[in-house]
Amino acid sequence: MASSITRASTALHTLNIALKLEQIVMNIHDRKPAMLDEQNLIPISGSLNTESIQARTSFLENKTGKQFPYLVNNKGFYTLDDLHGNIENYIGMCRVPTGVIGPLRVIGSFGSGDFYVPLATSEGALVASYHRGARACFTAGGVTSVCLTEGVQRSPIFKFESIADLGLFVSWLLPQSEKFDEIVGRTSRFAKLVDTKIQIEGNHLLVIFEYHTGDAAGQNMVTICTDAICQYIVECCPTKPKFWFIEGNHSGDKKATAMSFGNVRGKKVTAEIVLSKEIVQDVLKATPELMAEYWRSSTMGIIQSGAIGAHGHYANGLTALFLATGQDVACVAEAATGITRMESNTDGSLYASVTLPNLIVGTVGGGTDLPTQRECLEMIACYGAGKARKFAEICAALVLAGELSIAAALSTGQFAQAHQKFGRKK
Amino acid sequence: MASSITRASTALHTLNIALKLEQIVMNIHDRKPAMLDEQNLIPISGSLNTESIQARTSFLENKTGKQFPYLVNNKGFYTLDDLHGNIENYIGMCRVPTGVIGPLRVIGSFGSGDFYVPLATSEGALVASYHRGARACFTAGGVTSVCLTEGVQRSPIFKFESIADLGLFVSWLLPQSEKFDEIVGRTSRFAKLVDTKIQIEGNHLLVIFEYHTGDAAGQNMVTICTDAICQYIVECCPTKPKFWFIEGNHSGDKKATAMSFGNVRGKKVTAEIVLSKEIVQDVLKATPELMAEYWRSSTMGIIQSGAIGAHGHYANGLTALFLATGQDVACVAEAATGITRMESNTDGSLYASVTLPNLIVGTVGGGTDLPTQRECLEMIACYGAGKARKFAEICAALVLAGELSIAAALSTGQFAQAHQKFGRKK
Amino acid sequence: MASSITRASTALHTLNIALKLEQIVMNIHDRKPAMLDEQNLIPISGSLNTESIQARTSFLENKTGKQFPYLVNNKGFYTLDDLHGNIENYIGMCRVPTGVIGPLRVIGSFGSGDFYVPLATSEGALVASYHRGARACFTAGGVTSVCLTEGVQRSPIFKFESIADLGLFVSWLLPQSEKFDEIVGRTSRFAKLVDTKIQIEGNHLLVIFEYHTGDAAGQNMVTICTDAICQYIVECCPTKPKFWFIEGNHSGDKKATAMSFGNVRGKKVTAEIVLSKEIVQDVLKATPELMAEYWRSSTMGIIQSGAIGAHGHYANGLTALFLATGQDVACVAEAATGITRMESNTDGSLYASVTLPNLIVGTVGGGTDLPTQRECLEMIACYGAGKARKFAEICAALVLAGELSIAAALSTGQFAQAHQKFGRKK
Amino acid sequence: MASSITRASTALHTLNIALKLEQIVMNIHDRKPAMLDEQNLIPISGSLNTESIQARTSFLENKTGKQFPYLVNNKGFYTLDDLHGNIENYIGMCRVPTGVIGPLRVIGSFGSGDFYVPLATSEGALVASYHRGARACFTAGGVTSVCLTEGVQRSPIFKFESIADLGLFVSWLLPQSEKFDEIVGRTSRFAKLVDTKIQIEGNHLLVIFEYHTGDAAGQNMVTICTDAICQYIVECCPTKPKFWFIEGNHSGDKKATAMSFGNVRGKKVTAEIVLSKEIVQDVLKATPELMAEYWRSSTMGIIQSGAIGAHGHYANGLTALFLATGQDVACVAEAATGITRMESNTDGSLYASVTLPNLIVGTVGGGTDLPTQRECLEMIACYGAGKARKFAEICAALVLAGELSIAAALSTGQFAQAHQKFGRKK
Repeated sequence: MASSITRASTALHTLNIALKLEQIVMNIHDRKPAMLDEQNLIPISGSLNTESIQARTSFLENKTGKQFPYLVNNKGFYTLDDLHGNIENYIGMCRVPTGVIGPLRVIGSFGSGDFYVPLATSEGALVASYHRGARACFTAGGVTSVCLTEGVQRSPIFKFESIADLGLFVSWLLPQSEKFDEIVGRTSRFAKLVDTKIQIEGNHLLVIFEYHTGDAAGQNMVTICTDAICQYIVECCPTKPKFWFIEGNHSGDKKATAMSFGNVRGKKVTAEIVLSKEIVQDVLKATPELMAEYWRSSTMGIIQSGAIGAHGHYANGLTALFLATGQDVACVAEAATGITRMESNTDGSLYASVTLPNLIVGTVGGGTDLPTQRECLEMIACYGAGKARKFAEICAALVLAGELSIAAALSTGQFAQAHQKFGRKK
Repeated sequence: MASSITRASTALHTLNIALKLEQIVMNIHDRKPAMLDEQNLIPISGSLNTESIQARTSFLENKTGKQFPYLVNNKGFYTLDDLHGNIENYIGMCRVPTGVIGPLRVIGSFGSGDFYVPLATSEGALVASYHRGARACFTAGGVTSVCLTEGVQRSPIFKFESIADLGLFVSWLLPQSEKFDEIVGRTSRFAKLVDTKIQIEGNHLLVIFEYHTGDAAGQNMVTICTDAICQYIVECCPTKPKFWFIEGNHSGDKKATAMSFGNVRGKKVTAEIVLSKEIVQDVLKATPELMAEYWRSSTMGIIQSGAIGAHGHYANGLTALFLATGQDVACVAEAATGITRMESNTDGSLYASVTLPNLIVGTVGGGTDLPTQRECLEMIACYGAGKARKFAEICAALVLAGELSIAAALSTGQFAQAHQKFGRKK
Repeated sequence: MASSITRASTALHTLNIALKLEQIVMNIHDRKPAMLDEQNLIPISGSLNTESIQARTSFLENKTGKQFPYLVNNKGFYTLDDLHGNIENYIGMCRVPTGVIGPLRVIGSFGSGDFYVPLATSEGALVASYHRGARACFTAGGVTSVCLTEGVQRSPIFKFESIADLGLFVSWLLPQSEKFDEIVGRTSRFAKLVDTKIQIEGNHLLVIFEYHTGDAAGQNMVTICTDAICQYIVECCPTKPKFWFIEGNHSGDKKATAMSFGNVRGKKVTAEIVLSKEIVQDVLKATPELMAEYWRSSTMGIIQSGAIGAHGHYANGLTALFLATGQDVACVAEAATGITRMESNTDGSLYASVTLPNLIVGTVGGGTDLPTQRECLEMIACYGAGKARKFAEICAALVLAGELSIAAALSTGQFAQAHQKFGRKK
Repeated sequence: MASSITRASTALHTLNIALKLEQIVMNIHDRKPAMLDEQNLIPISGSLNTESIQARTSFLENKTGKQFPYLVNNKGFYTLDDLHGNIENYIGMCRVPTGVIGPLRVIGSFGSGDFYVPLATSEGALVASYHRGARACFTAGGVTSVCLTEGVQRSPIFKFESIADLGLFVSWLLPQSEKFDEIVGRTSRFAKLVDTKIQIEGNHLLVIFEYHTGDAAGQNMVTICTDAICQYIVECCPTKPKFWFIEGNHSGDKKATAMSFGNVRGKKVTAEIVLSKEIVQDVLKATPELMAEYWRSSTMGIIQSGAIGAHGHYANGLTALFLATGQDVACVAEAATGITRMESNTDGSLYASVTLPNLIVGTVGGGTDLPTQRECLEMIACYGAGKARKFAEICAALVLAGELSIAAALSTGQFAQAHQKFGRKK
């Protein structure tokens, strides 16, 4: 049973998003190919040396108006207060190499711009590959990226003596939605309960509470709010459950699930680009036909693999960006699902899109205030309140750049060579 | 079509593992409850201060005979040479807070011992929760953890004019296995081709090459070997494919798939523990009945969610350990699948197990040589050659500790409180 | 994006169902063990002979007040008019052996009673096994079976030049829901549009129209209504799609899908029973502990198989009943999904439930008017208007009987013997 | 753990099949467009009348040299002996309308020819749609259909005190394969054990026995053989399991599973056709471009639906053919999975293929000896021993015809009209 305790606001919310889509049409119709030169391309160099690092640092400081002493200069040390709420049994700091790609041009509904994106990883070739994809996208005028909807779930489970008892409980539960709103309102400043669904299985009842969580990733927030709701429920309901648990392992927390993939968890974002034949050839060293052919064949491969969705390697870019920016990196397990599509158009160009329905991200809370993490968020102008949807749109644009680059490599036999070049120790 | 080009070695390999299982029987029958005291419990303290950090550092140095200047004291700076092969467009180092849990007692088939496990994360409550689980396991005598099998795949796809052409190609391909072995032998010192399977779908042929990769995670290794095999194939085969691509998106690289879950990718490890009623009550503040009840209900929840496998939050512990030890963290997207089981025994104790079929891990190569990462591997005596299976067994033991702790929390209503206590900023 | 164009009616619909649940509480609290004797048990006999057939026929005529000349006596021949709309290129009639089980006692929210259920199959042991399960359920007082919700979907797909164009289209589409209702109202007497959801993937838009279809299975009805809506859409929308297709292969028509499993397709029904230890022993020749143990283990087996849901053999009973009663038998591919659960209670009894979210069934239209099919529907008092939900509840009760019987057989080693006894030709 | 107790025969078996593929190349290269006229096209007529039935009957008798008195003339009555082993609690025979399509030209590796295929259904438009697809395929020279591999599984589960006990058991089990062969050899004349795999999950062991079952569907056969093996195991093994059950619900019996889809269950068949632009236009009233476009879009739809595989409506044709020919119709729940692909070639033609990995079918045993069922098998020259693989190839060819027809309808807007024309009662 998948009935919603529906709210008028859901439909309105959808409409608002649709209106945003209208707003970006202007931007998109203005989209035109752009030139990459030393004015906007981050300085790269074949070898790793202090000069090239300095050049990149100066370039970034100049472009962003920010400084990055923790990230670049291994500045001092965090104060222990900085770590409160992030760690227990603390012993020290792990350090992860971080590179920068860009410009990644994003035409978003919550923020457009050219971004220099920090990626923390120890896997050779990853940064180079995403950088190449970003170059292709920039040259083509930028990635359209739209945050479509959002929601974070907690799904308590209630077990009853019988279906009959469960039925009495549901009869009582369904009219309580205003009460639940009130409880959420006094439990959290940011959380907003946006939907409540039920799933009945014998004498088991899952209640799926879905929230908006402001600019926080929000898993703790929804736990605390749902706990408050459940405390009220078990105290006041006339038909008591035999057992109840605050999470019936249905919400998709920390794992890829078909349900999260088919709905939303965190933010749902879709992004697209059209690359001319020339850009595909010049930047990606491939052809639209070959990339489309690769994607068609590999979609059959992934269907046979029994994956959830069908994409290439979302986890690579997402992990590196999540790590750099203080996201809950474990959420990559759920975020790295979605659909990539590549098709050759009749005019010879390449259409490519990615859709990520489970981006659990935030720009406040969690690890976002840690020194290097904050610097990395500032580098893409996504630190603090009001930035989460924009950040999600950058995530999707990044992921699209990565899909393009790997598909070009896989379709033309560059893939093994790239790993031989970048991924091997001296 | 899932036919193997079979090898006698596969059966022998299975037997070897079975014999290992026999060897550990002695250890396991010797398993007995152990006491936790200041001799072996890592010093913890309610508040985060320099004294407690110093106490933990000294304790760890004493226990392991190693020092951790990069991790603990933010020592100097890496040389740029250290970073070669790990990053491009380098700008600096992200730093991630790292805590330590333990002792985690592991009775493994590739290495037993008491381990103090470094976890890098910015998510409050995570380290405390895994530490609690580890304490319960230690007190009960330790986690049995067995690396059952291993294999890393590349799955090129070949497209033909027709099924008939594909058939001719397969007729030629199947007798080539010795040639493939020879190619692999001269391409890599470590890779060993252990199985070759084919999947036919219309005029598409997936060839699934499965390798042992020594102590490396091995994704690059298998790419380079498969590329060499494919170069030979397309040069020599009498029936040429219309297209071929080195990865048909079937291998499960960087994503959870039903096929990897049902077979193996990386290492497959299973781990178990029996906790007495007293330990469950004293350490986990729960009862075996309640935890078993929780697991039973939540298994129904996760089945309804459409997950691959059925577990709690593998990604949390795996991500923190992968990050600390220089693993490819993006592989959490594939590694965080498996099955957790909790049952109450007739004697009142709790049986719990985890099974992780997709642990892509290594103790050489990748990020394992980076300074803090190497220190973290040394902390658990897993740095370098000959340690990958042992490391995988520690991963599974850690994951089991985490599943126990979260199930205790979720079954007794501690979950929301823990996040309020640990996970909120001051 | 899974936003609904929501309607107040959805919440009310849920409430109505919840109230039904309340109504059946009385029945269920009255549920008490019942005796099986020649007054109510359908006459069975070890061997197949005309006397036993005659005995069953007389018994059924007596119990139902109906006659079954087409089914039992191979009466005359259908007129060709009877076949109009059911077949093309007609040549003759296939005949399938049909047995009867019962009484199957059902305590439903849309109809309670003792039913003698016709099952058409050529698989030996099937009827005997379901009959045994029905006997156990009757003795325990009957199966609680509740039709929770319903809905049949069509999901046209629209493809646009870009996400921006898609956004303009969605902006226009969302406020059209009243217009869609009007179109449906004049296209079909029975169909009612109850929800409209959208899924965006790049420049692809799926629109999921969900209908109530009265007492018909309804697939044709929803096709014709959706076609009418789409004709309106493509004529009137200001932003034209590049392509559109009336079914984007998302609705789950004729195949098991995670989305249908997690929502509803056709009817969603849940059913439960509690069997005392004595009934399990006397009728099923097993013990509650062993059956619960079996189910616990086999749930792990099915999770490892990568099934959708977790059940035993729903398809056996559903196919035989669908076939006998003129349902669209191909819908077994979608209907045979769900969750079975068996647990031993602390009082020594066995709790068992089944949940079937995708029962595409009808009691009007399709094959329900064909002579033997109509007789079979009349045998269970489900022929014609107003019976579809009741029929769905009987389906679930039947399925529960079958799950109990097979679990008893599998948990005690009777399974192979039963197939040796019943399933072999002389 | 997915290790095989491997056999040399597996590789050889694969080779044999590959050689068969070589053999059919000649046929396929000879494939050329064919004319449909009254010599080979089954007589159809707009209205249902005795003349048209008589015309079809005479045509079929002439083409096949067989007569169909049970099917066509509702001849007499079955003797009760005919029903032994097929039914219990027998009461009578359900009758299902049956139409015939054809010629369906099949170029198979186990039998080629032009087949007139009986389909039993009560769903209007189904027969007409498959007939149209068959006409297109015939005109194009026929469907290539290849039975690639086969295997039917039983998967007993064994539960132990601990992983250590399980390890001892596995050590004993793995060298027993010759003993298992011997047991199977004396238990069944037809079954042949072809592979044995194990899956370890904590203290649970699944042993997956895979058999060839001759020309029978074989589920009973593999049950009885596996029971015999298990009786031997539990008697002789030195480490006894706490529990064991003959089927751990992993084999995929009667349900769609990712594992069966990725391996084989029953027969795995792939089939393909190339249709010229003219045939697509003339027979299917569509264009290759539009059908390819439809399939590309709808593949995205089905990926979003969370199906296993990606196809259109396999269940329709399979159910109707299974029903007519005495197959276990409940197996449609597992058989109706696979992959359909449609692509437009550069020469303007359409490539289409289907792959069905789970065709549980037989031409002996089960319902194949029942009077109308036998007549239907004889109509396609598939009655009795030596015909099962050929029958599986006809199944796949039929399914391909159906996929083409529905894709043509859905891509051009004929779908709703067809259901209005054929599927409505007068």
